[in-house]
Amino acid sequence: MSNIPKTPEPPYYAVIFTSSRTTGDNGYAEMAARMDELASEQEGYLGIESAREDLGITVSYWKDLESIQKWHENGEHRLAQMKGYEIWYQSFTVRICRVEKEYGFER
Amino acid sequence: MSNIPKTPEPPYYAVIFTSSRTTGDNGYAEMAARMDELASEQEGYLGIESAREDLGITVSYWKDLESIQKWHENGEHRLAQMKGYEIWYQSFTVRICRVEKEYGFER
Repeated sequence: MSNIPKTPEPPYYAVIFTSSRTTGDNGYAEMAARMDELASEQEGYLGIESAREDLGITVSYWKDLESIQKWHENGEHRLAQMKGYEIWYQSFTVRICRVEKEYGFER
Repeated sequence: MSNIPKTPEPPYYAVIFTSSRTTGDNGYAEMAARMDELASEQEGYLGIESAREDLGITVSYWKDLESIQKWHENGEHRLAQMKGYEIWYQSFTVRICRVEKEYGFER
């Protein structure tokens, strides 16, 4: 992702997904691109941003907790989650947050 | 940062700092390392994680909003913020969040 997501006035929600990968691609890059696309089609989706160096950080933004729950339970996303546990991740942490304040700068 | 921060039971707070850099280092890497170190010495600090590709994402975790406010007003951090506006960032967004739920996985 190369643009900072434009999100509405708070409150809205964020899912911070921080991960450490296992070695080798094993289909990960293709799945990650597909999950970005699929997430963007879900109700309540507001945007996504990702970067990876030693750690990967993906933050997705959502209208409410119900949207996050539905995305979590999406069938194709569930399959990706299972492969995450089985193959792709050494470790990860998911943090579900209520965004209370936002400000920014543009040159 | 190469480890996912270990944070306490929610609720606690997160500051999601998403940025796009200008070209050239211009002292940025040294400042970023110093700010990671300085943040870790502040009251209420719980951890930090960063990654940069096209976008940079740094998430710092804090005990409460008061800790975030104090860190924001820290003198050395203020100087870094000024150079951020003047030199280092093309654009950035800061999102202040209340972490409501956390779960994870470790292989």
